[in-house]
Amino acid sequence: MTVAYALDVATSTIFTQIRVLLRWKGSVWKATWIELIIWLIMYFILSVIYRIMLNKWQREVFEKLCTFFDTFSVFIPVTFMLGFYVTIVYNRWSRVFDNVGWIDTSALTIAQYIRGTSERARIIRRNCVRYLIVAQCLVFRDVSPPIRKRFPTLNHLVEAGLLSKEELEEFDSIKSPQSKYWQPIQWLFCLVTQAREEGMIDNYFLYVDLIEKMRDFRTKILNLIIFDMVPIPLVYTQVVNLAVRMYFVLALFGRQFLDEDKNIPGAKFKIDLYFPIMTSLQIIFIIGWHKVSEVMLNPLGEDDEDFETHWIIERNLQVGYAVVDQAYDRCPPIVRDPFWE
Amino acid sequence: MTVAYALDVATSTIFTQIRVLLRWKGSVWKATWIELIIWLIMYFILSVIYRIMLNKWQREVFEKLCTFFDTFSVFIPVTFMLGFYVTIVYNRWSRVFDNVGWIDTSALTIAQYIRGTSERARIIRRNCVRYLIVAQCLVFRDVSPPIRKRFPTLNHLVEAGLLSKEELEEFDSIKSPQSKYWQPIQWLFCLVTQAREEGMIDNYFLYVDLIEKMRDFRTKILNLIIFDMVPIPLVYTQVVNLAVRMYFVLALFGRQFLDEDKNIPGAKFKIDLYFPIMTSLQIIFIIGWHKVSEVMLNPLGEDDEDFETHWIIERNLQVGYAVVDQAYDRCPPIVRDPFWE
Amino acid sequence: MTVAYALDVATSTIFTQIRVLLRWKGSVWKATWIELIIWLIMYFILSVIYRIMLNKWQREVFEKLCTFFDTFSVFIPVTFMLGFYVTIVYNRWSRVFDNVGWIDTSALTIAQYIRGTSERARIIRRNCVRYLIVAQCLVFRDVSPPIRKRFPTLNHLVEAGLLSKEELEEFDSIKSPQSKYWQPIQWLFCLVTQAREEGMIDNYFLYVDLIEKMRDFRTKILNLIIFDMVPIPLVYTQVVNLAVRMYFVLALFGRQFLDEDKNIPGAKFKIDLYFPIMTSLQIIFIIGWHKVSEVMLNPLGEDDEDFETHWIIERNLQVGYAVVDQAYDRCPPIVRDPFWE
Amino acid sequence: MTVAYALDVATSTIFTQIRVLLRWKGSVWKATWIELIIWLIMYFILSVIYRIMLNKWQREVFEKLCTFFDTFSVFIPVTFMLGFYVTIVYNRWSRVFDNVGWIDTSALTIAQYIRGTSERARIIRRNCVRYLIVAQCLVFRDVSPPIRKRFPTLNHLVEAGLLSKEELEEFDSIKSPQSKYWQPIQWLFCLVTQAREEGMIDNYFLYVDLIEKMRDFRTKILNLIIFDMVPIPLVYTQVVNLAVRMYFVLALFGRQFLDEDKNIPGAKFKIDLYFPIMTSLQIIFIIGWHKVSEVMLNPLGEDDEDFETHWIIERNLQVGYAVVDQAYDRCPPIVRDPFWE
Amino acid sequence: MTVAYALDVATSTIFTQIRVLLRWKGSVWKATWIELIIWLIMYFILSVIYRIMLNKWQREVFEKLCTFFDTFSVFIPVTFMLGFYVTIVYNRWSRVFDNVGWIDTSALTIAQYIRGTSERARIIRRNCVRYLIVAQCLVFRDVSPPIRKRFPTLNHLVEAGLLSKEELEEFDSIKSPQSKYWQPIQWLFCLVTQAREEGMIDNYFLYVDLIEKMRDFRTKILNLIIFDMVPIPLVYTQVVNLAVRMYFVLALFGRQFLDEDKNIPGAKFKIDLYFPIMTSLQIIFIIGWHKVSEVMLNPLGEDDEDFETHWIIERNLQVGYAVVDQAYDRCPPIVRDPFWE
Repeated sequence: MTVAYALDVATSTIFTQIRVLLRWKGSVWKATWIELIIWLIMYFILSVIYRIMLNKWQREVFEKLCTFFDTFSVFIPVTFMLGFYVTIVYNRWSRVFDNVGWIDTSALTIAQYIRGTSERARIIRRNCVRYLIVAQCLVFRDVSPPIRKRFPTLNHLVEAGLLSKEELEEFDSIKSPQSKYWQPIQWLFCLVTQAREEGMIDNYFLYVDLIEKMRDFRTKILNLIIFDMVPIPLVYTQVVNLAVRMYFVLALFGRQFLDEDKNIPGAKFKIDLYFPIMTSLQIIFIIGWHKVSEVMLNPLGEDDEDFETHWIIERNLQVGYAVVDQAYDRCPPIVRDPFWE
Repeated sequence: MTVAYALDVATSTIFTQIRVLLRWKGSVWKATWIELIIWLIMYFILSVIYRIMLNKWQREVFEKLCTFFDTFSVFIPVTFMLGFYVTIVYNRWSRVFDNVGWIDTSALTIAQYIRGTSERARIIRRNCVRYLIVAQCLVFRDVSPPIRKRFPTLNHLVEAGLLSKEELEEFDSIKSPQSKYWQPIQWLFCLVTQAREEGMIDNYFLYVDLIEKMRDFRTKILNLIIFDMVPIPLVYTQVVNLAVRMYFVLALFGRQFLDEDKNIPGAKFKIDLYFPIMTSLQIIFIIGWHKVSEVMLNPLGEDDEDFETHWIIERNLQVGYAVVDQAYDRCPPIVRDPFWE
Repeated sequence: MTVAYALDVATSTIFTQIRVLLRWKGSVWKATWIELIIWLIMYFILSVIYRIMLNKWQREVFEKLCTFFDTFSVFIPVTFMLGFYVTIVYNRWSRVFDNVGWIDTSALTIAQYIRGTSERARIIRRNCVRYLIVAQCLVFRDVSPPIRKRFPTLNHLVEAGLLSKEELEEFDSIKSPQSKYWQPIQWLFCLVTQAREEGMIDNYFLYVDLIEKMRDFRTKILNLIIFDMVPIPLVYTQVVNLAVRMYFVLALFGRQFLDEDKNIPGAKFKIDLYFPIMTSLQIIFIIGWHKVSEVMLNPLGEDDEDFETHWIIERNLQVGYAVVDQAYDRCPPIVRDPFWE
Repeated sequence: MTVAYALDVATSTIFTQIRVLLRWKGSVWKATWIELIIWLIMYFILSVIYRIMLNKWQREVFEKLCTFFDTFSVFIPVTFMLGFYVTIVYNRWSRVFDNVGWIDTSALTIAQYIRGTSERARIIRRNCVRYLIVAQCLVFRDVSPPIRKRFPTLNHLVEAGLLSKEELEEFDSIKSPQSKYWQPIQWLFCLVTQAREEGMIDNYFLYVDLIEKMRDFRTKILNLIIFDMVPIPLVYTQVVNLAVRMYFVLALFGRQFLDEDKNIPGAKFKIDLYFPIMTSLQIIFIIGWHKVSEVMLNPLGEDDEDFETHWIIERNLQVGYAVVDQAYDRCPPIVRDPFWE
Repeated sequence: MTVAYALDVATSTIFTQIRVLLRWKGSVWKATWIELIIWLIMYFILSVIYRIMLNKWQREVFEKLCTFFDTFSVFIPVTFMLGFYVTIVYNRWSRVFDNVGWIDTSALTIAQYIRGTSERARIIRRNCVRYLIVAQCLVFRDVSPPIRKRFPTLNHLVEAGLLSKEELEEFDSIKSPQSKYWQPIQWLFCLVTQAREEGMIDNYFLYVDLIEKMRDFRTKILNLIIFDMVPIPLVYTQVVNLAVRMYFVLALFGRQFLDEDKNIPGAKFKIDLYFPIMTSLQIIFIIGWHKVSEVMLNPLGEDDEDFETHWIIERNLQVGYAVVDQAYDRCPPIVRDPFWE
């Protein structure tokens, strides 16, 4: 589930920032602590080796190396790359959420256009909702690892009650080398045709509008497949990834405190703090910034910020049935409203 | 309410900037003065300690520390992060405003398509408007703290006259583990069906178009829920937040005036101004810039720049009733216009 | 009126740039000369004071101060802020122009769907156009200062012939605490209903399409109100504004030529040019860049680059009447075209 | 015509770049060579003056001046401005191309909805296409210099066979102080009404859809007029333009090789290359980058990258007639396809 | 085929980055190794020449030259340009993918609206699908080199079974100097008209909606042609290309280790590593970043990241026939669903 903190920031006061900083789930602390500790351990090992184990000549070489890496680390344009890369990843991420697929519009339209209180009408309305969700499940299985785990085969959909045995047989009876996300939609359209023929839909006008709304739902979830097929080019992800990591590998050397600092040409002034506090901060900022893009690269995965696909399907099922069945044609009495003059 | 200053900048003259700078509500002054004062107090405490209380050896350590922090504060890419982050937050903020939900289009369409001057027709038209606003209230309760405060329970909607007792009972009679933003919309569609059956809507054509416009309103306010569920990833907000604050924590040391400046390797030349004027300016610019993103993070909260959700509901109610009831079917006489030749 | 220079840049040659640079209206020269002169005057006053009136000790203090401001002016990230801010302002500005409201589509649709050559049909068509423009005027009065000046009260609309007395009375007869931009639209819809009932519109199909096109016009001009209510957050405008001005206030000191430059620690080498040519250039570039955002902040104001709202209304009136009345149902004879084989 | 090089870059190999770099038409070489040569000539003149004609004191002044300009040229944020400016210009440019107006959709719809093989039906279909193109020509005349040149008056449209004499008379008979881009569209709608009345269009449904598609075409080409009226604000174009030129004017001095370089305070180390190779490269990069925006500022002009408006009209005419006339109702026999099982 | 790595990044852990970095296909390693090796070879040749073959005077010249290039390589704003350029290229690339053309919506609509189980109905439905794909092939032939290779002439379409001989004859019988992407669409519309006349389509309502969906498919694939005609301006591509290459050509000199470094004015401190490790890293980052834009410039080419156009056509054919023929009107029995209460 995405980490909601909107209420924390509803008003911008002096404490807003502190409240936001103290969160753990989905936080920069959780995202960076492992890498920070690994880096610190390696830094201290190097530091100890330099201070204790090296002889004078070795120290001189080490010092030159450190100064060299320190000087030339500006060659790696880390912040610049991150600024542009994170913006691109963010835009893609928010487009994914526009296409996640909420049943509400479809369900309300089904309840409004397919009329009738007979059992047959109820069955058709309920199945319409169910088929939409089955299509969504088929798509989610291919783009969202948690749904894949829950429904490794289509039989698991039958077990979960989303599909009947007969439907699975019918599904399997059409052979195709391609994914058949379209098949539940075709069943759905079949149901609509049936409903029209049996007079539950008054008019071809309503019929076309209903098909249109269902198609919208389908187009949206299909977009998820396309987003999945066309990720940010791998080379971009790699370049940014590599630049960030390599920057800190070089910093292992470049940020060491060196005894004879002042005498080494090109070396910057440092003081012997034992703990590399500035670089630790930098790791939190830069790695943290990079993590923003990592958690957003596959928005339907299992990161803290990822969308809980389980919950979406569960919700769609509950809301869908409630709209087309429980609440069908229920309405408060039509009387004067409280403001009536 | 957002702070309107459009009239101040209608024309760009030499005084435009001054007028804009002198505002207080929603201003950079209001946004930064607390943090500036806190920072200054801490700065002066440190300054006094350094100048009076430390012995020579302690001063030397302190001086080295300050110089160290001053040198390496460039590691924190504050402006770069802010540039990209604020742009992302701004774009999200302006998308929220596109989805706030104005009743005008729906109300005009209701008045145009549901015809009749009988009391029944009036009741139906008025209730259509009311149900749209009830749906908006349900949504606003979950995304906007001020509306939450005004309507902590649904009973408060009854008290405010937005909902009748019977309607609340009907609302509660459908049990669902999910939020039921859709229920007033279903009542609304029910009313439209009723109106169609009683002949107030001439034609299925008008009927579908009417449903469509109502659906638009619903989709827009529902988007607010989705925006609320999917905020800017927490880690991004934290990284920027932390970078800005930490930058100024380090500046507490790095910007101190040091007696022996010239003799400290790596130290920049400074003059003893007692008051850190440049850093104060920097705090106003950087913290101010950051505040831009803070006030925009939850656009329906209670900041000066936030949208006044109370007013939106009030306005929708007034305009909605005026359009579908008071002004229904009123029209000036159809006569030649003043330009007639 | 926006400054058109498209023809100057139709072809990119060596003279293109010069032609573009030599313009005055809406130019960087016109935008910056006042501030440049004010700055120069203050600069020279300071320069004269330093060179003539200060004693040695005062000069030393002054020199330290100047060097101090010169060194630390890098704290103000002027170009960075401007880059991001101007882009945001530009995008908002061009969205405003997408919503300015041209009558053409509505007028063509009115002429096409409301048929008949009787005086009554003519009156209805003409009034449809007029009511659209009245709605536009009501909106413009609230967002565009020049239109506000022209029509300070609604009586001025009557005088201009846009509204008849009876219509103004009808307008005033509906009391509402909110703006009534919707009222002329409701009259308009009333006219359309009338036209349908009198058989001037053949079909409900055309009727719905006509209403739709009118609604488009209305939605667009209403967006102008929303843009006006939701400006760029004031704090952003202030931060950028302040950063730019403060940068040049500090430059008053930092850019002074100092006699003993070489002996002042931290001072950059300068030569005594008397005239601060580089800083003048910088003022033109930076203030000029900032002016881009200032002229775009309220696109319906009275700057050179602002859209001439007068002209829009005038044009809509002329084109609207021409389309629905003069040119109604006129058509060249239907004969073979020149390419006929 | 825009310069197509898509095939050159279809695959990214080591030679891709070289192939792309060796092009001349629309290339950076063609764009920058004149300015480079002018700059070099002025540079060498200055260089010769300095080396040969100046006495010692003059040389000293000259050297100080050069060093001064070299040091402070960083005040001009050329790359930063260009980055943001070019992005804005590019986005506007690509929006223009989305609105250029292709006849295909309209023509296919005309052929599909206006049925009949009589000469009258043919005439109507052909004239529909022609009137769309006439409207396009009227628009192009006002935004595209090459079309303006080809059709300086409307009589030239008659000569080109796009308009008949009777049509021009009809066009001129409606007087209006505003441009009459809408008039051919109104004739077009008239034809459609005629076709409907004579039974060539089966149904009001098709009629509305046909009008809609024609309106799309009209809206698109009208957008070109609006883009033309609302260019990038002149002051932005000027600021960028001036910054780039002024940067290189200063470089004329700042990049001179100076004899006593090492002794001039603040001077950077240089070697006497006679030819200013680095600055030449910089001119190619910076001026070249700036040229990107220049060629895109008016996309319908006569630059190499501009769209060939002639060809668009020619193509629309050929494709339009082919679709609605030659290929009307032609269809291969409806038989089993090759994959039939 | 685009390189899918979404599953690798589904969850952001410490190993995510390593997994992503170790890929080869579409990777930064594959993209940069050739240029890195060429650069290294040239670097070592220069290095050997300098160390072994030059006499003292030549060495001094060489050293000055290297220092000169090293100092002034900052004139080339490589990272800045890349940031903006790659963003523009990326946005264009992702717009191309929105227009690739999936048959699903069209096929489902065809199956839903063209009813009947007669062979004639089947033929019509199948041909509808086929003609859409033929249109797509015609477009792909002109924008995608691999499809061009597969279908160099239209006869190859006949061989592949996509076109019958009669259809090719019919296609050739309309002469036009312009590409005839519209012709298969016109056949398609012809089929629809036929189906309507023979009563397979119940209603003009469905007819218009069906035409609309087919038009959508057509508009999308046509956009590919327009994207192909209007690439990123050549001069932009060249400037970026040249800047990147030239930067590393200069680095061949500037990054050489020089013996007397410390005595050369302006030279930076370096240590003699023999292997230019920092520059190699920089090549990987900068060239890699640039490669991002290169592989995206023509998204339908043959790079690793390009979309496999073959597969799209293959898939459309399989899915299209399955939807309109095999699965036509098949539907599981309409019975109570598993959740029925």
